[in-house]
Amino acid sequence: MGHGGGGALSAELVEHIFAPAFGGRTLSALGDSAHLELGGARLAFSTDSFVVRPLFFPGGSIGDLAVNGTVNDLAMSGARAAYLSCGFILEEGVSVATVARVAHALGDAARTAGVEVATGDTKVVETGHGDGIYINTAGIGLIPDGVDIRPERAVPGDVVIVSGPIGQHGVAILSVREGLEFGVEIQSDCAALGGLVRTMLDVTKDVHVLRDPTRGGMAAALNEIAKAASVGVVLQENRLPVPPEVANACAILGLDPMYVANEGKLVAFVPREDADAVLAAMRAHPLGSGAAIVGECVADHPGMVVARTALGGTRVVDLPLGEQLPRIC
Amino acid sequence: MGHGGGGALSAELVEHIFAPAFGGRTLSALGDSAHLELGGARLAFSTDSFVVRPLFFPGGSIGDLAVNGTVNDLAMSGARAAYLSCGFILEEGVSVATVARVAHALGDAARTAGVEVATGDTKVVETGHGDGIYINTAGIGLIPDGVDIRPERAVPGDVVIVSGPIGQHGVAILSVREGLEFGVEIQSDCAALGGLVRTMLDVTKDVHVLRDPTRGGMAAALNEIAKAASVGVVLQENRLPVPPEVANACAILGLDPMYVANEGKLVAFVPREDADAVLAAMRAHPLGSGAAIVGECVADHPGMVVARTALGGTRVVDLPLGEQLPRIC
Repeated sequence: MGHGGGGALSAELVEHIFAPAFGGRTLSALGDSAHLELGGARLAFSTDSFVVRPLFFPGGSIGDLAVNGTVNDLAMSGARAAYLSCGFILEEGVSVATVARVAHALGDAARTAGVEVATGDTKVVETGHGDGIYINTAGIGLIPDGVDIRPERAVPGDVVIVSGPIGQHGVAILSVREGLEFGVEIQSDCAALGGLVRTMLDVTKDVHVLRDPTRGGMAAALNEIAKAASVGVVLQENRLPVPPEVANACAILGLDPMYVANEGKLVAFVPREDADAVLAAMRAHPLGSGAAIVGECVADHPGMVVARTALGGTRVVDLPLGEQLPRIC
Repeated sequence: MGHGGGGALSAELVEHIFAPAFGGRTLSALGDSAHLELGGARLAFSTDSFVVRPLFFPGGSIGDLAVNGTVNDLAMSGARAAYLSCGFILEEGVSVATVARVAHALGDAARTAGVEVATGDTKVVETGHGDGIYINTAGIGLIPDGVDIRPERAVPGDVVIVSGPIGQHGVAILSVREGLEFGVEIQSDCAALGGLVRTMLDVTKDVHVLRDPTRGGMAAALNEIAKAASVGVVLQENRLPVPPEVANACAILGLDPMYVANEGKLVAFVPREDADAVLAAMRAHPLGSGAAIVGECVADHPGMVVARTALGGTRVVDLPLGEQLPRIC
């Protein structure tokens, strides 16, 4: 299970099995999506399979995730998602009503995100060889002229901004799956970030890095960036926007919010001189109202992420081995 | 299971559930891939999930299918496949050696087809919620200028050409899955058809329709074209290239070769005046050496496919309800 968690074990699988087998130039880059040139157009191309359990959860469904996950991977290149493909793997016996409900959620999410579902496929497997519905989406988007956003572009001096409260998606899934109650119902933050990214790019095209901290949470996202760019990252732990209900749930469950998945948040590395203006633009957008500067990029300890604690100490934020919760997306 | 078979039940699912939910203009077209315009480029975009059982079979593997299936969907628009995405859903407990073997088959098939695996994703599900390995691929290709190939373009007078012997893939899967032996081992015809399509387009850009008769076989492909273009199709049954070993296996099993899946064949509708030259070009290509003219497009009985039997009779070739064999791709 750990190999599917988006952490160190997933990275090993890609590095040692998939990348050598496929041998592409593009796949070896480390962004959320591939950057391609085709017929004179600069395209971003990305795919994700969704196996979340349960299919419906507070704040969303597998249909919402299938759209927003891929739209967000494209947005992390600065690309405007244009078209999605959609492949369903149905387990024999899943009700037509459930399929229809998921399909409508997916269609609604696509309209909200401004992306068109252009092509699809359906396969059915026998009972006991699936889990209701699995969905794969792949997306194509146009990268605007002058935009070059990828993990390798992080440089010492960059300011690290997170777009809002973290940890909601993972805790929402866990609470509904395990029947846990934490006083307040915690909703997934599942959302499409294309519009938020466009408001940031209106301030400056020179955003260096964008990343949506999904599987493996903030910890995985920041470690991947630190390694890709050979830079250090220093976080101010008390600046991380962790909602009290997420903090409580994590305390009870022994989880670290920094490792919990988000599905509607982004982390940005922006030049220091643009940081305040980018932050202000983000806060003026509904999906960035809780944005905060949480740290900076440094030349020290390249490849490593450290957090300054509220008490003045420092701890290393490791790349997680796997995901704390399986099948959260 | 029937809803995944590529026949009438699959069509119902798309027509009544997916198309209304997604509401795209593009999805309602009936080709194997969507035709898009992005950044000034004319693109074809297609996706397929692969759930074939077993993972390895005579003549190929799920890795070969995952490349060739999507490359062929693009080729059926005349598009040259450029980039693939690749999403793996692994079942907990599948061996790393099996994953590696499939990944290498996939990489080799991509190199043979001249397409780059540009982006990927891996998810892992618990034992009993998958079946070893499922793969989704999506592909992007460029449609050459002056090429407009889609089912709606079939017109009375068009000549129907098939690129070679039919029925091999489905019978190969069935024989290995059920442990049947028919004297000669029947190999899947799994292959990428981009090169063959390019030789055809070198003769004329005015190829009207291309279709790869996969799930549901020739019967499903021809019925879909007949319906999309509101034309009739008349086949000369004795001209259909059915290899003797496929004919024997089908006779024993009570299958009709016209309904058995192919993974390396195409059906073409071409203007009568170009038919001989296109046929000659196909026969000069290794993947078209067995090409044959098998029928014609007529104005009578629009939406219906009929076969003239060797004895001079006529029978209707219906759209299959589902697939005769589940999980053949």
